Amino acid sequence: MNIDDLSATIAELDSAAMQQAQQRQEQLTKPQGALGLLETLSIQLAGITQQCPPSVQKPIIVVAAADHGVAEYGVSAYPSSVTAQMVANFLAGGAAVSVLARHVGAELLIIDAGVQTAITSEAANFRSEWLGAGTHNLAIEPAMSLAQAQSALERGMNIAHELADAGHDLIALGEMGIGNTTAAACLTAIYCQQPAAVVTGHGTGVQAEHYQRKIEVVAQAVARVGSNVNGIKPLSEVGGFEIGILAGVIMGAAQRRVPILVDGFITTAAALVAQSLAPTALDYCIAAHSGAEPGHRIALQQLGLRPLLQLDLRLGEGSGAALAIPLVQAACHILREMATFASAQVDTAL
Amino acid sequence: MNIDDLSATIAELDSAAMQQAQQRQEQLTKPQGALGLLETLSIQLAGITQQCPPSVQKPIIVVAAADHGVAEYGVSAYPSSVTAQMVANFLAGGAAVSVLARHVGAELLIIDAGVQTAITSEAANFRSEWLGAGTHNLAIEPAMSLAQAQSALERGMNIAHELADAGHDLIALGEMGIGNTTAAACLTAIYCQQPAAVVTGHGTGVQAEHYQRKIEVVAQAVARVGSNVNGIKPLSEVGGFEIGILAGVIMGAAQRRVPILVDGFITTAAALVAQSLAPTALDYCIAAHSGAEPGHRIALQQLGLRPLLQLDLRLGEGSGAALAIPLVQAACHILREMATFASAQVDTAL
Repeated sequence: MNIDDLSATIAELDSAAMQQAQQRQEQLTKPQGALGLLETLSIQLAGITQQCPPSVQKPIIVVAAADHGVAEYGVSAYPSSVTAQMVANFLAGGAAVSVLARHVGAELLIIDAGVQTAITSEAANFRSEWLGAGTHNLAIEPAMSLAQAQSALERGMNIAHELADAGHDLIALGEMGIGNTTAAACLTAIYCQQPAAVVTGHGTGVQAEHYQRKIEVVAQAVARVGSNVNGIKPLSEVGGFEIGILAGVIMGAAQRRVPILVDGFITTAAALVAQSLAPTALDYCIAAHSGAEPGHRIALQQLGLRPLLQLDLRLGEGSGAALAIPLVQAACHILREMATFASAQVDTAL
Repeated sequence: MNIDDLSATIAELDSAAMQQAQQRQEQLTKPQGALGLLETLSIQLAGITQQCPPSVQKPIIVVAAADHGVAEYGVSAYPSSVTAQMVANFLAGGAAVSVLARHVGAELLIIDAGVQTAITSEAANFRSEWLGAGTHNLAIEPAMSLAQAQSALERGMNIAHELADAGHDLIALGEMGIGNTTAAACLTAIYCQQPAAVVTGHGTGVQAEHYQRKIEVVAQAVARVGSNVNGIKPLSEVGGFEIGILAGVIMGAAQRRVPILVDGFITTAAALVAQSLAPTALDYCIAAHSGAEPGHRIALQQLGLRPLLQLDLRLGEGSGAALAIPLVQAACHILREMATFASAQVDTAL
């Protein structure tokens, strides 16, 4: 993979299909624009898939999990042991994203991107892409090597290609990793040029003094890395293995014209990484929701993505992306199934 | 029906079931509160249904349609003929709400509450509750008699009772009626004590001079009615037959402890009517979305309802309520299916 050439591998959205979708929206039995974001979404989906009407019938949620060395600094309300325990919970079907995936009829793929003790499972929806026993502590040293960062991106792209080959027509992103809101805050601070205090939130619920420590850690890491970094350096310096894989999934999905649903703060940080490496990949992304983390809104703004849901979610896992899947499908159904003014013999505007 | 006694027929939410739901939320494998509005919604649903976990398995969307005499003043971008034509479109399955009801697995009941020429249909999901050939022009005279207003409320309550008897465990509201954003604006101006220009929007898309005329019509109607009105008078003076029936559905559903999904500006105006007659009915209401009409946000605030979706919808029909049904069900599934920290052997917060 030559990261300088990534942009060239991702095509622009298909403007003819988009125009066709726009024209069809204008003929459907409703005032123009009355379905708001669902209409713009249907047009984007036509442009992504080169189909009018588009369809989403085989969605999958890809949840990448990894540990973070920075957790040793007490930046999370939970111990690192929870990462592996939650992966087991995902596979057993008891986590929020497991419940929501069943509810919306999506498949669920769980990836060990680098949990402290590598996970072994025979489950059909588990995949090991283990890059190491968690990252190093980003506060004091690079989280991973450049080679690991490169490998994470490549693995993610390969996963997306395989999912596209298997007929998945929507890839929703999810993650798990104790400490990863700290990594996401660092990436957001770097890419959005914002101070640590602005992009750092309470994550899973750190209180008072731990929250102060978290802000200091983010500030320390960003100062260590410097502000003039690009390429895969930010990912290697402050990223997580799961973030690298998810950034790869975004670019791989865009290469194959598969729409991507971005979830919360961490997957949005992965989108920032993808944007810096291949800006056109963002045209293939849909923001599922705007979460409670302050940095999430900042990152979405930088990406130019408008979220579908505002439910004060702050769980991650892909829970918000799962909830948005029926909305994406609704946008497709509207374009495919609604009658036109002519076919339904309804009078048009005066 | 003695409208002075309506409040006494609606019980408060069940605080024991709500406490049980709250306690269960705290044991599930996620940080406390991390599922945001879905958690508060699950607790409300437990209180409404007296069940923990609650469930929503047989949702129905009730779309009431009627014409409005005020349409003769050019307050809508569409002619009154469109109301009946859209009812035919609902029944034929080609309207937005038809498509979305299929998508989310909800039944659809279409009610002729007072379309200009009474609709005849043998369709199983059609019901005539015809109260007249549209209302009178609210700008210059009462839209309907007090007897018609009373009948609309009673019919709505009866409909809700029959739906509850048939096992429907969620009633979503929808409407159709050329001119009815004007009626909704009048009701909102009266109940929320706001000037016409603040609560009047562009509806289906009226432009410039028609929009000015619409504001004047609302101001004229509110001046005619006066500001010190209550009971069923506002409904009879400026309401619509569909709004009266939907206000009745809300109160009838609350009497039977069935949750209600409120849709856009017009169904929210129906909730204002219900609130004034029986304030406790509001505890049974969930706001599906915040639409593009400025009066909608004002009415939601007055009702104390926080919307689940913000998609810039301005269609009505129950389209926003339909889109919110999977979110309501998700709230139930979370409470029912998620593992606890104990059952999944996940470490709790440090």
